[in-house]
Amino acid sequence: MKIIRSIKEMQQTMKQLRSSGKTIGFVPTMGYLHEGHLKLMNEARKNNEIVVASIFVNPLQFGPNEDFESYPRDIERDEALAKQAGVDYIFYPDVKEMYPTELSTEVHVKKRVDVLCGKSRQGHFDGVATVLLKLFNIVMPDRAYFGLKDAQQVAVVDGLIKDYNIPVELVPVETVREEDGLAKSSRNVYLTEQERKEAPELYKSLQKAVEKITAGETDLEKIKSEIIDDITRKTSGKIDYVEIYSYPQLEPIAKPHGKMIIAIAVKFGKARLIDNVIFTV
Amino acid sequence: MKIIRSIKEMQQTMKQLRSSGKTIGFVPTMGYLHEGHLKLMNEARKNNEIVVASIFVNPLQFGPNEDFESYPRDIERDEALAKQAGVDYIFYPDVKEMYPTELSTEVHVKKRVDVLCGKSRQGHFDGVATVLLKLFNIVMPDRAYFGLKDAQQVAVVDGLIKDYNIPVELVPVETVREEDGLAKSSRNVYLTEQERKEAPELYKSLQKAVEKITAGETDLEKIKSEIIDDITRKTSGKIDYVEIYSYPQLEPIAKPHGKMIIAIAVKFGKARLIDNVIFTV
Repeated sequence: MKIIRSIKEMQQTMKQLRSSGKTIGFVPTMGYLHEGHLKLMNEARKNNEIVVASIFVNPLQFGPNEDFESYPRDIERDEALAKQAGVDYIFYPDVKEMYPTELSTEVHVKKRVDVLCGKSRQGHFDGVATVLLKLFNIVMPDRAYFGLKDAQQVAVVDGLIKDYNIPVELVPVETVREEDGLAKSSRNVYLTEQERKEAPELYKSLQKAVEKITAGETDLEKIKSEIIDDITRKTSGKIDYVEIYSYPQLEPIAKPHGKMIIAIAVKFGKARLIDNVIFTV
Repeated sequence: MKIIRSIKEMQQTMKQLRSSGKTIGFVPTMGYLHEGHLKLMNEARKNNEIVVASIFVNPLQFGPNEDFESYPRDIERDEALAKQAGVDYIFYPDVKEMYPTELSTEVHVKKRVDVLCGKSRQGHFDGVATVLLKLFNIVMPDRAYFGLKDAQQVAVVDGLIKDYNIPVELVPVETVREEDGLAKSSRNVYLTEQERKEAPELYKSLQKAVEKITAGETDLEKIKSEIIDDITRKTSGKIDYVEIYSYPQLEPIAKPHGKMIIAIAVKFGKARLIDNVIFTV
């Protein structure tokens, strides 16, 4: 496994690999790798001759009151994990390399952002779109891997790729779950023993909702109420949102139709857990 | 020469050519080709194995009161001219192919735009940047050719390429001129016989300014005044602007320094002529 810190070297290396006919799978990350990232790397490993991961804590996607400075970083641990997962190249630039001068342009994401978690993170996805436009041009991958745990990010990336005809295939990867269904998250360690026991109810309530819709239920407000009731009754969590939208457009729908997402965010003490199901009726 | 109208076919064709090691030179145009375009195609022909031109009147770069509908189009004439100039592929999509649905994102050009001709064309360069991001991803060229007659466009494209690390080499091509120095333009036909005789004074005044600065003149306000005097005395044209900036940043400078541009716009009846010189001190 090779670590490359310069954009120019990365572009030259990738160009050579591409022109020799190799397929490139790409996993963009902010480092501090967890099982979710490793699953993405494993998926990339299965279907590409070369696997590239980037590790870059992108200042542009943090709000002024967010934790850019204190975001956890551990490159040595990340290196070991990526190597184990079969990554061939890590692209690990510093901020000066990625943003040497003030940008002369800006990308603004207009759709798919003012819902779910995006509502409270003004400008977050503009930063995500900017860094991904750069990374796609630097790595020039055939396929890019994103986890469906952050289904809104996948929707935004889908829009970005279509808008600019980026020659990359977006590969959404299923959320990694514990045995009992709880979506894996670095935030799960904040849960008390009791909360940890309750937390699988989130996914259970989502599965139940999918079953009902698939069986013919068309009242989405009723479905939402039932999820809220379920979680309120069975857990001590405080519901932030329960939303149902078309996917990946993330637009409101009156009745079940086509590809849809049910997404929830629930607070347990200082842990805010999110989960979602995407399905087609 | 082959004409391709579908994005998918274009991307597949270009991908194949690239993976077989061919270099691709790209000339983006809005069609209705003139000598300026043909010079770009000739330059592309000299240094690349494959030459691609795009013909697309991009609605996004026209303002609401501009002439998108009436912009001249003549694909048959363009085909003949492009073929003669040695173009291998024309990419000729329709608006529906390029913008099938409303974009979910937008690119906004923040710098290099509120000066020269950009001042009076709000949003124009946002449209240029958007379509170029798309075209670069569709054609995947090694080199892209732009005429320096529109030096501001070259500056904006330079910013765009750097911002997003687009793996393409920007090749700015010298303005094509008549024997007497007048920059070639489709608008020159609007000049009366008398105006046509006067018009070469624009370039002469620019050349004189460069000579003076190169010889040590540091007072740029004086240089501007002299250009204005020259053009006012020797022509019937009405000066729109005479500006001196750093290039390609297009920022004001107090003294001659580094790479600079002197740019002018002058109205002769209904013909608005522009010209510029770019030089380094």
